[in-house]
Amino acid sequence: MKIKASIAGATGYSGIELIRILSAHPNVELALLTSESYAGLTVKKALPFFNSDKILVPFEPGKAAAASDVVFLCLPHTKSMSAAAKILKTGKKVIDLSADFRLKDKKVYEHWYSAKHTQPALLRKCVYGLPEINRNAIKGSSFVANPGCYPTGIILGAFPAVKAKLVDASLITVNSISGVSGAGRKAKVELQFSEIDENLKAYKLASHQHTPEIEMGIIMGSGNPGVKVSFNPHLAPVNRGILSTISFILKKKLNTAEAVSIYKAAFSGEKFVRVLPEGQLPETRYVTGSNYCDIGLKADNSTGRLLVVSAIDNLVKGASGQAVQNMNLMFGFEEQAALENIGLMA
Amino acid sequence: MKIKASIAGATGYSGIELIRILSAHPNVELALLTSESYAGLTVKKALPFFNSDKILVPFEPGKAAAASDVVFLCLPHTKSMSAAAKILKTGKKVIDLSADFRLKDKKVYEHWYSAKHTQPALLRKCVYGLPEINRNAIKGSSFVANPGCYPTGIILGAFPAVKAKLVDASLITVNSISGVSGAGRKAKVELQFSEIDENLKAYKLASHQHTPEIEMGIIMGSGNPGVKVSFNPHLAPVNRGILSTISFILKKKLNTAEAVSIYKAAFSGEKFVRVLPEGQLPETRYVTGSNYCDIGLKADNSTGRLLVVSAIDNLVKGASGQAVQNMNLMFGFEEQAALENIGLMA
Amino acid sequence: MKIKASIAGATGYSGIELIRILSAHPNVELALLTSESYAGLTVKKALPFFNSDKILVPFEPGKAAAASDVVFLCLPHTKSMSAAAKILKTGKKVIDLSADFRLKDKKVYEHWYSAKHTQPALLRKCVYGLPEINRNAIKGSSFVANPGCYPTGIILGAFPAVKAKLVDASLITVNSISGVSGAGRKAKVELQFSEIDENLKAYKLASHQHTPEIEMGIIMGSGNPGVKVSFNPHLAPVNRGILSTISFILKKKLNTAEAVSIYKAAFSGEKFVRVLPEGQLPETRYVTGSNYCDIGLKADNSTGRLLVVSAIDNLVKGASGQAVQNMNLMFGFEEQAALENIGLMA
Amino acid sequence: MKIKASIAGATGYSGIELIRILSAHPNVELALLTSESYAGLTVKKALPFFNSDKILVPFEPGKAAAASDVVFLCLPHTKSMSAAAKILKTGKKVIDLSADFRLKDKKVYEHWYSAKHTQPALLRKCVYGLPEINRNAIKGSSFVANPGCYPTGIILGAFPAVKAKLVDASLITVNSISGVSGAGRKAKVELQFSEIDENLKAYKLASHQHTPEIEMGIIMGSGNPGVKVSFNPHLAPVNRGILSTISFILKKKLNTAEAVSIYKAAFSGEKFVRVLPEGQLPETRYVTGSNYCDIGLKADNSTGRLLVVSAIDNLVKGASGQAVQNMNLMFGFEEQAALENIGLMA
Repeated sequence: MKIKASIAGATGYSGIELIRILSAHPNVELALLTSESYAGLTVKKALPFFNSDKILVPFEPGKAAAASDVVFLCLPHTKSMSAAAKILKTGKKVIDLSADFRLKDKKVYEHWYSAKHTQPALLRKCVYGLPEINRNAIKGSSFVANPGCYPTGIILGAFPAVKAKLVDASLITVNSISGVSGAGRKAKVELQFSEIDENLKAYKLASHQHTPEIEMGIIMGSGNPGVKVSFNPHLAPVNRGILSTISFILKKKLNTAEAVSIYKAAFSGEKFVRVLPEGQLPETRYVTGSNYCDIGLKADNSTGRLLVVSAIDNLVKGASGQAVQNMNLMFGFEEQAALENIGLMA
Repeated sequence: MKIKASIAGATGYSGIELIRILSAHPNVELALLTSESYAGLTVKKALPFFNSDKILVPFEPGKAAAASDVVFLCLPHTKSMSAAAKILKTGKKVIDLSADFRLKDKKVYEHWYSAKHTQPALLRKCVYGLPEINRNAIKGSSFVANPGCYPTGIILGAFPAVKAKLVDASLITVNSISGVSGAGRKAKVELQFSEIDENLKAYKLASHQHTPEIEMGIIMGSGNPGVKVSFNPHLAPVNRGILSTISFILKKKLNTAEAVSIYKAAFSGEKFVRVLPEGQLPETRYVTGSNYCDIGLKADNSTGRLLVVSAIDNLVKGASGQAVQNMNLMFGFEEQAALENIGLMA
Repeated sequence: MKIKASIAGATGYSGIELIRILSAHPNVELALLTSESYAGLTVKKALPFFNSDKILVPFEPGKAAAASDVVFLCLPHTKSMSAAAKILKTGKKVIDLSADFRLKDKKVYEHWYSAKHTQPALLRKCVYGLPEINRNAIKGSSFVANPGCYPTGIILGAFPAVKAKLVDASLITVNSISGVSGAGRKAKVELQFSEIDENLKAYKLASHQHTPEIEMGIIMGSGNPGVKVSFNPHLAPVNRGILSTISFILKKKLNTAEAVSIYKAAFSGEKFVRVLPEGQLPETRYVTGSNYCDIGLKADNSTGRLLVVSAIDNLVKGASGQAVQNMNLMFGFEEQAALENIGLMA
Repeated sequence: MKIKASIAGATGYSGIELIRILSAHPNVELALLTSESYAGLTVKKALPFFNSDKILVPFEPGKAAAASDVVFLCLPHTKSMSAAAKILKTGKKVIDLSADFRLKDKKVYEHWYSAKHTQPALLRKCVYGLPEINRNAIKGSSFVANPGCYPTGIILGAFPAVKAKLVDASLITVNSISGVSGAGRKAKVELQFSEIDENLKAYKLASHQHTPEIEMGIIMGSGNPGVKVSFNPHLAPVNRGILSTISFILKKKLNTAEAVSIYKAAFSGEKFVRVLPEGQLPETRYVTGSNYCDIGLKADNSTGRLLVVSAIDNLVKGASGQAVQNMNLMFGFEEQAALENIGLMA
């Protein structure tokens, strides 16, 4: 039996990636693919990589709900609020890839996203969709907030050290480097090739809107409410990939082998987290196109630090792959269905 | 039932890509993976994208034959000759990704590759593995020479116009732009990132060793022995992809719609060739990671030219994907088995 | 003594490059720098690479003329027409980097640029600014149309072979690969990093608006009115650089050494054209940041072709460097003033 | 009057960059250019960007000294030791771009570079060539150790905050992202284009050999001996540029404007350090090809951090530009001679 899945916002980067993954899913049939910019065109005209004659249509929540068992919302922030509400009323499931329902506190959302939240009642209903720390809640749910790209890699890299009380939870420093597809598919001079190619920059230092989500996730995963993160995002000229280097202050001496073994235990049984052996560090090319989060560790007693590096493909584990992982859990499919492919190494 | 497939040269780019494709093949079990540089290491240590504990071993033709139903040879040119001979003697099948057995004439090989051919008797036995022009011969074969990356895209783009007698076969001009993975995985200064990044160059003008294979393939596909190609290869800073622009001199006026319709007919029923509608041209990003060859056409009566552009992923349709397509034909599997995935658009 | 130079459109890529070059010119003082998008900001705020407190102002032709001895127009096509007319009336000099005054025939312009030409009288007055074929006319002029990027490299690469009657002028095939800065600084999805990175494409086959300018220039340089060019432009993921591969059909046998010697003679005394010795082909990295046009040759008697490859930096010899070379000629400065720097090789 | 300067190791990336800068220096004449790999070739054959017929010769310290007033050593680590000793004995000046003489303590050198130091007596004689913190010593010197690329950007970004006692000197976290030219021009698989393109990685966490030099420089600049740095280097697919994000723990509340003003005062009168106004962060593209170090600041009282970002071109301020700045100081030339050019913004 196949369920019907629709994608609202199918011609943005996470929508495109959902098409790629779902088109190979044994339990899914693609229903509506919506796009405002390309409405009326066939998929193969708008997105020539995918050989489909389906017609792209404008998004209408009611029609999407009627046509589907689940609707993936790949909409700009604030646009998911009323759409999710309308679809959920019909009893259909929603997986929201925007940030609109990730934070539980309306005020925190409104502060960091500079926007009014119009569906505060739904905030509580929505389940945070990071399976490695919240699998059981996702399984029973009909409404999942899919995590942000930075939070996914950082939370997975950080929570085990905090949970194991190895480090000072109040003094976490995270430096991430992201590929450009994370910024979305938008006509902006600052996203032009010639502005980004051969360039490295930091941006939104101490002010990136993912910061409260990162802290929330590490708290969820570790049970320690005293988590405080200083988050420094950077942009580099790659399409895909987020590499996060997390610098912890050790509470007491630790060697790398011990750290690796604690992390291996924390992710025991997890299909999509690979803890690397001592001496090996992750690289984004090894997760390109796959749903893996790779984690490498280095304890340095001379500076009293534990360094954790995590790598994900921001469009897969950081967005659409994780959304499918959540769908698999919500519908009782194999968790790794359509996600077992390995990526492109070069 | 599953066959056992071994890869000789598993840690070069076409070997790595074979691992990616074969690991998802429903009818194949990976047997030996060989590597001289990484022998003794696990696959996941040498190639961390692939989560396998298999140990890489040095290549020995006899052992590979004994362990396998088919051996893929991803070896440097000249190294396949004796290896293929040894494996074929045991009755096992060989798919050779090198150039050693593509050309039928020993002298032509020796001229263009500056090397002696030690197995001339096998040249005649070996089948040229471009399914779209040679499918029946491949089906019965136990020894296939997998086409070169440039030839694949150029032959598919060129032969229908020649076959339909639209153009002067003796005055074909081909300009190709290739990604860098086509040069192989080698420690050379000229392949260093900083020598290639932000650089465009032509190379081996009128002297590229793929030239006779290109002509041979167009002759095979068209039946016209009078094919003469002037081939100009270029290198650009991308990992994957070959874009070939073929410039023909029209014998008489033609419009683009007619050209498109002739090409659509020529590839009717082909799963891996997509002839684009008038007004649309291929881009390599639409075939990245997939086995497609996309073809776009433009007739220009003001200059009397027919322009054909083809795009492939040099590591998939240009190497390992096509090798698996050949394997599927040789063993009677579905031709598109393990090759139906769509690629990464960004 | 220093002249005053203004740049209309100083925050586009050719305007930025003019700032870079002119700021080091011994005979030039920068006067007005205009920008619509960044008007009111200091240069160092809008363009942090250049440490100047000058305020960017909106473009008004009268004010620019009043403040300057020469105005460089780096405006979108069609915007230069009336601006040039107004400035020329005041007796000040104009160097127009747009295409508006390059073609002598109003109808040809209107056909290829799909726009009405409102200053046809000025077309005749304007001098085509390719010094290597038109130096004397530039010297006496107050109004120069700076050549397009593609035409510069192609004309220099092509005219000597036509002039020396080595090749069939009516059957010239040109394949060019361009960097992305040539498309200008514009907020367009198709120019986004993730659409261009790791992608190769052909575009505007047989329909690029530079085609008539290319033919005009080869005719000017060679004296042969029978020039016909089939022009195939391509885009690759580099910021700067155009590599053009010109394929000629030889009239009679020729060897590469002879071709090199004919080209060396044709460019004897030229400071900015380097004809490479036999066996060497140009690469764009060797001209990045410099005003050089490098030319390499290969005669191939087996296919009856002469292959010429030219490389320029599209923003220097293909735009702003050449504009300064023209200014130097118009004002009687050393032709190579401010242009003697060598570029960045990596 | 012109001095004669030789470059030992002229065909590596810092040697090539020295050629670029010195060829435009009003007080310098290039004497010997040495290269082992390209010995016997003309410069224009080996390095076609530079139009010189000079012949590259193998390096012999005695000959280089005899031909020069100053010799720049662009040699692999450990190779400078005896060469410097020999040249200095002749009374000629040496600027060493390797790490061999940067650290004052033989044991520290031997620990971090895993090599024996054969010239310990010269360690004390050699002056650390970071002009912004050591200008007076450089002025009188005949032997300068040119700083490493990472240390240059990090020391300049870090010492003012430590000197002004704003931050905890013992708990400094530095995350840097480097372009690939910093790894040198070497035939290694790991430096191949296809291994680096579209990839992000951390490397040598808590073990990079520049760590003691970074601490030494911050101590020199701040006068605070209690400096301890946790240094995390990363590699991204760009040719040039190092972006360093320094995370300090604030001793007491501070706002960004105050931090900016303290940094502006610290670099008052410096030609090559640009402290950006509040709200602006550096990007490597704004320093590409120039000798600037750009510094941006952000104080974040919610996490108690001061964040400092510095950007340099690793081949200019991080290597060859700084070497020329040192030469200018050693010979009494204008400090900014040949270094006033602005870079390429795109």
